[in-house]
Amino acid sequence: MLAGRGCRFVVRQKTEMALRGALSRVDQLRFLSQGAHCGPYPARTHNCGSLSASDDGKKVVLTGWILPERKAGKHVSFFPLKDSFGATQLVVNRDSPAAPLSGLTVESVVLVEGEVALRPEKQRRGGVGDIDVVVSNFRVLNSADNSLPFTPSDVSNIANEDLRARYRYLDLRRTALSDNIQKRSKVAHIARNALHDEGFTEVETPVLLRSSPEGAREYLVPSRIVRAEDDSPVFYALQQSPQQPKQLLICSGAVDRYYQLAKCFRDEGGRKDRQPEFTQIDLEMAFVSWGADAASAARGWRIGGAEVRDAIERLVRAMWAGAEGVTLPSAFPVMTYQEAMNRFGSDKPDTRFGLEISDITPYLPATQREALEREGEILQALIVRGADFISASQTAPGVPDTERVLIDAANRTSWQRSSSIMAGLPVADDSVCEIPSLKPGDHMWLARRTKLAQGGSTPLGRLRLQLSQIAQEQGSLTLPSDACNFLWVTEFPLFTRADDDKEFLAHGRWSSSHHPFTAPMYEDIPKMYEGRVDEVRGQHYDLVLNGCEIGGGSVRVHDAAMQDHIFTNILQLEPTEKAPFEHLLHALRCGAPPHGGMALGFDRIMSILCKTSSIRDVIAFPKTSGGTDLLFRSPAPVGEDVLREYRLGYLQKGNSA
Amino acid sequence: MLAGRGCRFVVRQKTEMALRGALSRVDQLRFLSQGAHCGPYPARTHNCGSLSASDDGKKVVLTGWILPERKAGKHVSFFPLKDSFGATQLVVNRDSPAAPLSGLTVESVVLVEGEVALRPEKQRRGGVGDIDVVVSNFRVLNSADNSLPFTPSDVSNIANEDLRARYRYLDLRRTALSDNIQKRSKVAHIARNALHDEGFTEVETPVLLRSSPEGAREYLVPSRIVRAEDDSPVFYALQQSPQQPKQLLICSGAVDRYYQLAKCFRDEGGRKDRQPEFTQIDLEMAFVSWGADAASAARGWRIGGAEVRDAIERLVRAMWAGAEGVTLPSAFPVMTYQEAMNRFGSDKPDTRFGLEISDITPYLPATQREALEREGEILQALIVRGADFISASQTAPGVPDTERVLIDAANRTSWQRSSSIMAGLPVADDSVCEIPSLKPGDHMWLARRTKLAQGGSTPLGRLRLQLSQIAQEQGSLTLPSDACNFLWVTEFPLFTRADDDKEFLAHGRWSSSHHPFTAPMYEDIPKMYEGRVDEVRGQHYDLVLNGCEIGGGSVRVHDAAMQDHIFTNILQLEPTEKAPFEHLLHALRCGAPPHGGMALGFDRIMSILCKTSSIRDVIAFPKTSGGTDLLFRSPAPVGEDVLREYRLGYLQKGNSA
Repeated sequence: MLAGRGCRFVVRQKTEMALRGALSRVDQLRFLSQGAHCGPYPARTHNCGSLSASDDGKKVVLTGWILPERKAGKHVSFFPLKDSFGATQLVVNRDSPAAPLSGLTVESVVLVEGEVALRPEKQRRGGVGDIDVVVSNFRVLNSADNSLPFTPSDVSNIANEDLRARYRYLDLRRTALSDNIQKRSKVAHIARNALHDEGFTEVETPVLLRSSPEGAREYLVPSRIVRAEDDSPVFYALQQSPQQPKQLLICSGAVDRYYQLAKCFRDEGGRKDRQPEFTQIDLEMAFVSWGADAASAARGWRIGGAEVRDAIERLVRAMWAGAEGVTLPSAFPVMTYQEAMNRFGSDKPDTRFGLEISDITPYLPATQREALEREGEILQALIVRGADFISASQTAPGVPDTERVLIDAANRTSWQRSSSIMAGLPVADDSVCEIPSLKPGDHMWLARRTKLAQGGSTPLGRLRLQLSQIAQEQGSLTLPSDACNFLWVTEFPLFTRADDDKEFLAHGRWSSSHHPFTAPMYEDIPKMYEGRVDEVRGQHYDLVLNGCEIGGGSVRVHDAAMQDHIFTNILQLEPTEKAPFEHLLHALRCGAPPHGGMALGFDRIMSILCKTSSIRDVIAFPKTSGGTDLLFRSPAPVGEDVLREYRLGYLQKGNSA
Repeated sequence: MLAGRGCRFVVRQKTEMALRGALSRVDQLRFLSQGAHCGPYPARTHNCGSLSASDDGKKVVLTGWILPERKAGKHVSFFPLKDSFGATQLVVNRDSPAAPLSGLTVESVVLVEGEVALRPEKQRRGGVGDIDVVVSNFRVLNSADNSLPFTPSDVSNIANEDLRARYRYLDLRRTALSDNIQKRSKVAHIARNALHDEGFTEVETPVLLRSSPEGAREYLVPSRIVRAEDDSPVFYALQQSPQQPKQLLICSGAVDRYYQLAKCFRDEGGRKDRQPEFTQIDLEMAFVSWGADAASAARGWRIGGAEVRDAIERLVRAMWAGAEGVTLPSAFPVMTYQEAMNRFGSDKPDTRFGLEISDITPYLPATQREALEREGEILQALIVRGADFISASQTAPGVPDTERVLIDAANRTSWQRSSSIMAGLPVADDSVCEIPSLKPGDHMWLARRTKLAQGGSTPLGRLRLQLSQIAQEQGSLTLPSDACNFLWVTEFPLFTRADDDKEFLAHGRWSSSHHPFTAPMYEDIPKMYEGRVDEVRGQHYDLVLNGCEIGGGSVRVHDAAMQDHIFTNILQLEPTEKAPFEHLLHALRCGAPPHGGMALGFDRIMSILCKTSSIRDVIAFPKTSGGTDLLFRSPAPVGEDVLREYRLGYLQKGNSA
């Protein structure tokens, strides 16, 4: 009975069973141990992407997946044989011993023996497309089921996303997807070599860390460890980033330059195109500068950390050169946060198109201008003209807190009298507002803003992107497909006024714009100690590509007194909130060098390099946007008996929050 | 008030305060923004390990940690200045502007300017030891506290392990430890390049996976996801190894050869020298052989997967060549499991010394021999003689189930009559047992064993290691410090008789010796289907170095019917236990290529390469053997309000298991 459950054979189940019926038991066993996919088979001589015209006449052994047959006349069949290197066209004479290949299910794994034959000249496609392999013999290494959930080679008929996610091992057989996975490996290799050549040391930091007060987005890991004091359950938390370990590492002096392709974990609760686990190219450097030298300032980089900028630019250039064959400029442009917000209404401006925002406050009648100034505000305008955007502007729904004014000869200098967004600001009925560049036919979009920009974008900035999107859909705007508009954004406000007092680290109206370890610009240190907190700029830098933030970093505070001042006086942390930072404060007191670093979002970068619409297409086994894994069917319930080992139990329904 | 909490200055607190008292408020702010470690400072021109005789006379700027002063006469002081590259000796004339260096606390971070001076010829130590730097000026970048928990540079007085773990950032400043961390990076780099050059594709597999029935050692991760059916909490589990994802990846055909330096997680509950998280060099290859060719068999490798063996040997050779400058042999010896157990009583034999075990059953009187045979057992002996081991044997406490017999002229052929371990086996009072090699003065250790070896070691195998340990302590045995006795162990039993019926996958008396995906040797497939389960050998291979298992792997089952047979008929899994493997079974049915792979324990390998007694010394931020992290103070309690978000609560005491 047991023997009957053995290996399956060359052709199909029915044939196999018939065959087995005719064999003696001894023969069956011999067949089982020698046959098909349960015993030795010859080694392949080549892969399916390596043969070319120069191999004409060679005897070869290939292995791979058999794709759908194409019959040519009565006697000949063609089959593509595919592996991860490419596809070779097999030629099978239907009178030959290889004829039963026709009976195989598509996606079966076979080994073929045959001879390379140069194609007729007109049918040569270059490389492996110059040749066929005329099959003399074959062996099934593993047959595929007759009914697969979908056929990965049928690119004209791609299954729905859930089905492909559930059977990811089939979807990964699609060349488009496997190319991404292979490219990811290639780029990671380039990145590591580039950093190695720059003298960076790879260090693995703990994934199992301590839960932190900013824990809203962290994953907990219950432990079986019994806490001696009170026998209560204790937890690790998965690292959200290696920020603290890497700073401690640099403080130790064990390495001068650290890097890691770090797996990070964040519970994003289904945020679009985020993954519960993601990969960062993370680095940190000791002895980075704490201000700019003349050469750096001349490039617009007026903060410290130029060493990080240079290392990152060399790294990114190496990645683009290796992956795309593209030579990026030898220095990326730099823009301050305020300039980015003023001109583009965004801290990650897409500079692939114009449509810049301008401050028209100076042109306003004095009554309006002075009233605005009293409120600490300015009036900005996005002036739209020309074929690129005017139609988009006509159809745009607009965004809240913006107003569209259609300019004609009558209202060109008087629109301000009836502007709704200016309502409540005193203006004379005969006031004149002479904006030199404004012309009849223009659309002018208006929005008010605080004088010092705040946040990540303004209403006009969001409108600008909306217009660009519509114009691209309408076909009036085409962005160059190979544009690589890298841009550094610097001099962010170090602290942000917290709207919600419950926000972490925001007891005292202020929270850190990035994280509390970011250093102020040294010119602004006196302001920080004087309490002019809103004017303090941080030594933070973001790297932006085509309007997408691909990385960020900063020079860190390395002075324990300054760090303590930020924790205690500005962020007004409670002692329990400060507790998780005590070891960092102590490390700063043990002789910490000046240091700074950066993290690049590797998934995002690969998504850009592979031109995919989602980062899921550059991850071998991604989760859905909801955080579930349809392949491994996780997360999944766990028995109460298992939970009991952690001294945990299920809450009764109704008890849950 | 705020301004008073600013940066600290050049020398010490007292001086600083005195200075500040004398300054006007404006001066204070100016000083704050320009001074010390809160503003720009010159870039270093060299690191502390790079200068040499050829730099004599150069003006240099160095940064680093200042180590204890050594005074030479009235006028000159020497200070080592250390960074992660090395240490340069500073010379300070106590009349110079650099004199206040003496007042600094040890481990403070300073920047010095000075001139390279060649040492007198007799004091040259080579490299950076050929020169001093005569300091003209210095600046404190960050002063260290007066009272550090311990002084890392004081290698004659190393603090206790808990203290060092708590202040790991100080401990990592010890050169011995930072050397390990840097070497780890170097070896990882070599490994990745070696695998890349072999055509391996690096793929990241999910860390957040599904909890499995073999979950006793896994870590759970509660999610905030609400399960639609019943609103019950659901959990991820941290990967214990990428076994299933990597097999699915190879089944997909997306890559032909996969590798990853994979972070794995296992709750070892305080097993000696294990870590909750550890790193494996993990790889898998498609189309590996399923049996040996003649060349492979001639090397003793009679199973499939020779491609994996070759790739691993090339990898290991590259690592040893790069890290140690050692050329390893071009082929590592191979030994079957049975031979290893017979000769060394271990499935990971330490072959750096002899002391082999022998089977003395054939020499026994027929009555004893036949009685043993009826019980399916053999009698083994470890015969000890000579200076190496005899004293160790005299003092060894021995291990259970062994018996020591001191051989003299009287009992040389009659010891079997009174042997306690043979008690109950019939023997005549005048029986003779003539073991040719046995001599008076020998110690003979005896133990009985099943005919086919089982498990990882035998009593005599454990005794052999005990004798070696004692002999080394006594000084009668010295193992060569540079020995690299690599050894492959193959042909393990595929299934193990389960002693404990509760053991996972052991309902039917059998469990998988390694994991249920390991393929049988093709010659043994008929036995497997016939139910002669104990005779089936697996296509599994372990790599052993000096008695330590550094890796293991196997050729996998790629036939769905065979895999199902193993799950259902041999391991007798319940449907719920089989459920987590359904996607693997389905992947095998979708056209899976023959495949096999291996994982090397990277932490263990680094521990061997760095000659450390614990893997903690090759990990930047390790946890204690109990699984706690004294630096980050994890694991830690979590509030009930946080747990409520996961619909979990604390069990009342008394409810816990």
